[in-house]
Amino acid sequence: MNEIIVTRAISSQQKLSRRLIREGKTIAIVPTMGALHEGHLSLIRRGRKKADVVVTTVFVNPAQFAPHEDFNRYPRDPKGDLEKIRRAGGQVVFMPDRRKMYPDEYDTYVDVRHLTMTLEGKSRPGHFRGVTTIVTKLFNIVQPDVALFGMKDYQQAMLLKKMTIDLNWPIQFVICPTMREKDGLAMSSRNRYLSPELRRQAPALYQSLTAARKLVRDGETRGSTIIGRMRRIIRQTAPIAEIDYIALTELDSMKPVTIVMKNTVASLAVRIGPVRLIDNMKIA
Amino acid sequence: MNEIIVTRAISSQQKLSRRLIREGKTIAIVPTMGALHEGHLSLIRRGRKKADVVVTTVFVNPAQFAPHEDFNRYPRDPKGDLEKIRRAGGQVVFMPDRRKMYPDEYDTYVDVRHLTMTLEGKSRPGHFRGVTTIVTKLFNIVQPDVALFGMKDYQQAMLLKKMTIDLNWPIQFVICPTMREKDGLAMSSRNRYLSPELRRQAPALYQSLTAARKLVRDGETRGSTIIGRMRRIIRQTAPIAEIDYIALTELDSMKPVTIVMKNTVASLAVRIGPVRLIDNMKIA
Repeated sequence: MNEIIVTRAISSQQKLSRRLIREGKTIAIVPTMGALHEGHLSLIRRGRKKADVVVTTVFVNPAQFAPHEDFNRYPRDPKGDLEKIRRAGGQVVFMPDRRKMYPDEYDTYVDVRHLTMTLEGKSRPGHFRGVTTIVTKLFNIVQPDVALFGMKDYQQAMLLKKMTIDLNWPIQFVICPTMREKDGLAMSSRNRYLSPELRRQAPALYQSLTAARKLVRDGETRGSTIIGRMRRIIRQTAPIAEIDYIALTELDSMKPVTIVMKNTVASLAVRIGPVRLIDNMKIA
Repeated sequence: MNEIIVTRAISSQQKLSRRLIREGKTIAIVPTMGALHEGHLSLIRRGRKKADVVVTTVFVNPAQFAPHEDFNRYPRDPKGDLEKIRRAGGQVVFMPDRRKMYPDEYDTYVDVRHLTMTLEGKSRPGHFRGVTTIVTKLFNIVQPDVALFGMKDYQQAMLLKKMTIDLNWPIQFVICPTMREKDGLAMSSRNRYLSPELRRQAPALYQSLTAARKLVRDGETRGSTIIGRMRRIIRQTAPIAEIDYIALTELDSMKPVTIVMKNTVASLAVRIGPVRLIDNMKIA
């Protein structure tokens, strides 16, 4: 069985990364907020194929939660996480202290402007500024050659890729497919908030996405028709659902799509009772 | 005579830095906008003492100029710069293309919030966002162990130090003393804008600073008295001068100082005809 190195101090991880680099080793980073599921583990396994050492970071980032959001009750399971990372082949885990990452006098933020103005950025003001800032910090601490993110958080993946290019880190950016439960529900640490009844309604997101993809395959190109169908499926499959948004966008630019051509992504955010779920699928 | 390596493509500099790091060499960065003077060269010489290789970057950064400012007429002398860098012992010069650094779709910015709200940040909105963003990019491209900046740009030095700490680059931040002409004028690439008549009035800034320091040494502690004296000296020495601001601040926090204690910096910005000059001095 492999052993894992756990670093907690920022300087410890910086020194470890520096040593690895001087030894000629390549580093992959898998940034997470813990409460790991198969989606995270698929990133770690993929990271092992792309680099010599995979550093998984586990940090529930307060800067990406609004005051009314679920920072305090966000699931935390450091012991379980370490065991899962070890089994997935991860060699290093960076688990920093919140006050070391954001001391009282902390004052520096990174913004990707246009890509953060729509969808999740519009529904959750300030969220992406928190995401881009923590990933900047983690990139600088871990000094990776490769960074891996999941497609489940589509907009996050696109804007972090944009940030990585704009700010010139010499980092290969890898986006991995969404991992799903058997009934199609996208894996998410927040799924554990779902009661059995809500869990039964949660696959509505996936069902609406596959229906959209089928519509396009059958020749439909009108965005409004596709979104209308998705909306009806949500209503029928999940009576409790409140739709936050349903959008069709061009894969990389995230510009709105009205007539579906290639590289169109359907994405949506839906409240299932107290739980806000997001999902997306490339439908063309 | 030493030879220098000139890199122009971002990827060339990234590869060169990576190779140096893998060889166990340490790197110092001296970011400049070219039109080099003895102040810049003192940073290069100091860099040689702190690291194996000094990378001087020469890039007139459009993002830190407002539309009405002097981006287009900012002095440029790449050939002279290379010769000066070589003589000062600099081994690598990174001279990137503007459109490679800021392509049309460029969209990511870094902000240090509180430290940018006063003095230069107040007088030149957006200026420091341009500075923090370009330095982030240069840090990521050059991957230095040490970064050197001049105290002449006091607020810039303080906020870049804050940014480096907040964003966790493993970089030692070194601030070097202001270099001055014989009559005390702080060296600046913009001094070459001064006509002989304006040049004669320009030492007013230095004279007001040394008078402030003397006042404090003689026992004065009231900020308003010190600033009043500075203002009078400027008016007497440089009749053409328009004072933008005169401020007393605590060295690191840059908080305003009303009663002078230790670690107080006097700083000022003054227009001498069409040329805006800044200077500062630790007066306690």
